[in-house]
Amino acid sequence: MLYRLPLVLAVIPHALALWPIPRTLKTGTDFLVLSPQFTIAVNVADPPQDLLDAVSETKGFLNNDKLQRLVVGRGSSDAVGVKTAKALPSLTLTLQSTHPVLPISAEAVKDIANRSEGYTLSIPSDGKPAVLSANSTLGLFRGLTTFAQFWYDLDGVTYTNVGPVSIVNDIPAYPYRGFMLDTSRNFFPVADVKRTLDAMSWVKISTFHWHIVDSQSFPLSLPDFPELAQKGAYSSNELYSPADVQEIVSYAASHGIDVLMEIDSPGHTAIIAESHPEHIACPLASPWSTFANEPPAGQLRLASPATVNFTAGLFTAAAKVLPSKYFSTGGDELNTECYAKDAQTQADLKKAGKNLEQALDTFTQATHGALAKLGKTAVVWEEMVLDHNLTLSNNTIIMVWISSANAAAVAAKNFRFVHAPSDYFYLDCGAGEWIGKDPTGNSWCDPFKTWQKSYTFNPLANISAARAHLVLGGQQLLWAEQSDPQNLDSIAWPRAAASAEIFWTGATRPDGQALDVTEALPRLHELRFRMVQRGVRAIALQPQWCALRPGSCNIDS
Amino acid sequence: MLYRLPLVLAVIPHALALWPIPRTLKTGTDFLVLSPQFTIAVNVADPPQDLLDAVSETKGFLNNDKLQRLVVGRGSSDAVGVKTAKALPSLTLTLQSTHPVLPISAEAVKDIANRSEGYTLSIPSDGKPAVLSANSTLGLFRGLTTFAQFWYDLDGVTYTNVGPVSIVNDIPAYPYRGFMLDTSRNFFPVADVKRTLDAMSWVKISTFHWHIVDSQSFPLSLPDFPELAQKGAYSSNELYSPADVQEIVSYAASHGIDVLMEIDSPGHTAIIAESHPEHIACPLASPWSTFANEPPAGQLRLASPATVNFTAGLFTAAAKVLPSKYFSTGGDELNTECYAKDAQTQADLKKAGKNLEQALDTFTQATHGALAKLGKTAVVWEEMVLDHNLTLSNNTIIMVWISSANAAAVAAKNFRFVHAPSDYFYLDCGAGEWIGKDPTGNSWCDPFKTWQKSYTFNPLANISAARAHLVLGGQQLLWAEQSDPQNLDSIAWPRAAASAEIFWTGATRPDGQALDVTEALPRLHELRFRMVQRGVRAIALQPQWCALRPGSCNIDS
Repeated sequence: MLYRLPLVLAVIPHALALWPIPRTLKTGTDFLVLSPQFTIAVNVADPPQDLLDAVSETKGFLNNDKLQRLVVGRGSSDAVGVKTAKALPSLTLTLQSTHPVLPISAEAVKDIANRSEGYTLSIPSDGKPAVLSANSTLGLFRGLTTFAQFWYDLDGVTYTNVGPVSIVNDIPAYPYRGFMLDTSRNFFPVADVKRTLDAMSWVKISTFHWHIVDSQSFPLSLPDFPELAQKGAYSSNELYSPADVQEIVSYAASHGIDVLMEIDSPGHTAIIAESHPEHIACPLASPWSTFANEPPAGQLRLASPATVNFTAGLFTAAAKVLPSKYFSTGGDELNTECYAKDAQTQADLKKAGKNLEQALDTFTQATHGALAKLGKTAVVWEEMVLDHNLTLSNNTIIMVWISSANAAAVAAKNFRFVHAPSDYFYLDCGAGEWIGKDPTGNSWCDPFKTWQKSYTFNPLANISAARAHLVLGGQQLLWAEQSDPQNLDSIAWPRAAASAEIFWTGATRPDGQALDVTEALPRLHELRFRMVQRGVRAIALQPQWCALRPGSCNIDS
Repeated sequence: MLYRLPLVLAVIPHALALWPIPRTLKTGTDFLVLSPQFTIAVNVADPPQDLLDAVSETKGFLNNDKLQRLVVGRGSSDAVGVKTAKALPSLTLTLQSTHPVLPISAEAVKDIANRSEGYTLSIPSDGKPAVLSANSTLGLFRGLTTFAQFWYDLDGVTYTNVGPVSIVNDIPAYPYRGFMLDTSRNFFPVADVKRTLDAMSWVKISTFHWHIVDSQSFPLSLPDFPELAQKGAYSSNELYSPADVQEIVSYAASHGIDVLMEIDSPGHTAIIAESHPEHIACPLASPWSTFANEPPAGQLRLASPATVNFTAGLFTAAAKVLPSKYFSTGGDELNTECYAKDAQTQADLKKAGKNLEQALDTFTQATHGALAKLGKTAVVWEEMVLDHNLTLSNNTIIMVWISSANAAAVAAKNFRFVHAPSDYFYLDCGAGEWIGKDPTGNSWCDPFKTWQKSYTFNPLANISAARAHLVLGGQQLLWAEQSDPQNLDSIAWPRAAASAEIFWTGATRPDGQALDVTEALPRLHELRFRMVQRGVRAIALQPQWCALRPGSCNIDS
């Protein structure tokens, strides 16, 4: 595709506010202002409502972001350029596909192999209209997200200084770009989850991994199992009603985000004893550290046929409320001592003539089978393939969490997997031990994972080319032992954008260079300041003096 | 003082919501509710307005805190006790001093040796009135703060479950209990500073150490030196006008807090070059790391008589807008290379026939002398006594920051000092390097200083009994390279309450035991939840499951 416009394949401009950086990008040095009559035309027959909503939201960002350029004077030196700039009259959205037009919310929850997120965007600087095209409404949504990141405010004028812009077929390097939130250790109201979904969508994250329940609380209210939340939520105000779940899932999907819900099993289930004591081994066993990785102890009686049925039914009841093709059954940190001391489990094993591993296999096949019946694929933590010898469908997706070094072992077993390693991507690490009376006082996964550390993650480290297709993507994760709405934004943002760029942009920036923290920092500042303008409490990365002078606070400057 | 009431010197009740814990405390096990007609009577002739305001604020807390007890069921099991409890009709405030009655704001800014913060509080559980007495309005304010921490909400009823209460002469172990905020690296609007002052007052912090300016920005607008902020603030919206400073100082004082303002010198002054280039050596010198501990480089030309005059005038202009008896002139991280490469400084030294140390002595005597003329005592960072051989008034107060181990050396020089050690009290440590292009990516003062670490600080470690009187107290500090209003609350609270208790309560709790993190944790939960109820975004310390079950998440439970 050739342009007559004076496009340059430049070094990425320092102040460019794009995150993740498109995989192809040409920018110029022209000023361009948004016309006061700027419109977004949706050149799509029978446009889905969520596409129209996305257009409205984009217009809102253009009107309300009011982000001043991060330079000394905050753009006042742009006044002449702005005054003489051409005005962009409109952005036209077109679909290039011959397929039926589906809503964003339908495209976002498709099988991961069938999602179409790419888009092409042209923003001329000569007064001609901008054009955004894609093969799906989801692609248009991604393109709108990019479009909205170009603009600054100077005295009420919305402008860019990098026109013209050409982005040709910006498609993600990996389909799974996630963010995990644990809503069990502490509760997060719907508004906080939705604000987090907003921030996720701004960096093109495609999956909200919702670790919705755990041993501490069960805030998921299911129509088929209402007692679990009635007895297991922290309070009647601290649960997700069926309507809340629908609101979150629907909001996510319309923002290009699939919800991967997790009901961790058979461990991390102590709270189920509040409503179903018959299904829980070693509830509240003491000392908890013998029976669980964190308090309280309690695991599903995996050897009990009744508990297997209960769990399969629970997964069915939960998975069916979501459109996602995926559902996580957990599988981490199984504690054998809990079962060794549980008389019923020992009796169940004896009766079945099985050892614990065999019973776990039966449990897993039954519960994964329940998901398969719904047409859903199971997602599990790495122990299920690395520590246990189970019969797993080769379709199963593995989450690598204990160490980034374990990805290669998972790949060697030929499973598709998601990078979620604690040593790069755990947002909660490094804030001290939350367990009481601990003489050391450090968190198990010290130190703090800086955005720089996260950003240097290599998705293909130690993965052979022949296994590279198994890498679905990756995500940063917030375990909420020391988080709740008070610090959700500040612990997550802008750090969680690091993986969003790694897994969208891949190894190479549009300027042909490898991703590196020095180039990324000014753009991450831009993203952070824009997030703050939009109401997300993302933290400062540097003194403002540095943010306004890219490079001046580098170690060697 | 003997009571006929059934008081017990009990182990501190787990759910007791007092922070800092009074040095004397007797509580019972009676329920007691606040009468719907509960009043606070100020039995003081001509009560100062700020005392009346404090009473109103206390009533607001009693009405609005709505903190449910941190137990399973959130106090629902207290229903019977609440129903049968006596009602507290009133709290009467009395002054026992024969001195003239001064406002809280006057008492709070007295010389540190002359402050009277003690109070005595009796809360009967038999329906008789509560009595709070003190020798000063400041003592009454401290007592009101304690009083407001006793109360929970159950279905709209405000109650306590630890009546009767007797606190006899709760006086702080140390007069200086501080919190330092850096408002230069990033700016904090007045509302954020005031919210922080609120939180400080709730834990009886007595000093706001306002590190108001530094090399990156000069947000202090002084009537006598308006150009410093005009040229040195990040923007005209990011500065403290004279009215803003008065508002903060006045708000602080009326909340029992003295404002110790700091204008760091002669280092950490690069931004002054924007308005007074004639006074700054090595401005923006590169690489900055040769000339300063952080970018940008630039230091006051300490050997220039004009600069000495300028600095003395600046300190006078700043110090006179505050009632405090104290003013910090800084003195940390002096960089000699900056002066070695500055031709004017070399010429000034030659002309005066002095070496740099001698010039620093002249600079220090002149600038401290300017403060002395105003009747103010200089406060300096530790290098001024440990790294330099200066003529300092023996009245000078030293801030120990580099390491807690340096306190003993300062004490050996017989200076009064404040504990502000980076290894215990720096709130910013452990969040990663903010300098760009740094291959290590760690903060210089890793790791994160957990509340537990801070809480185990011993003010008298390696300080002989003969030198113990030199310990004025201590403080936690927030350097704001990676902070701004977005994460101010979450990085500071409840951690900064750790030192507040150490320096109020001292080594021993009212139950005779030494302070320890295991006893403290449930109380710190209570404080944190109360802070959230009052609009301060203090972070969760544990899963709510643990917060509701004190001790259950201890390592050995």
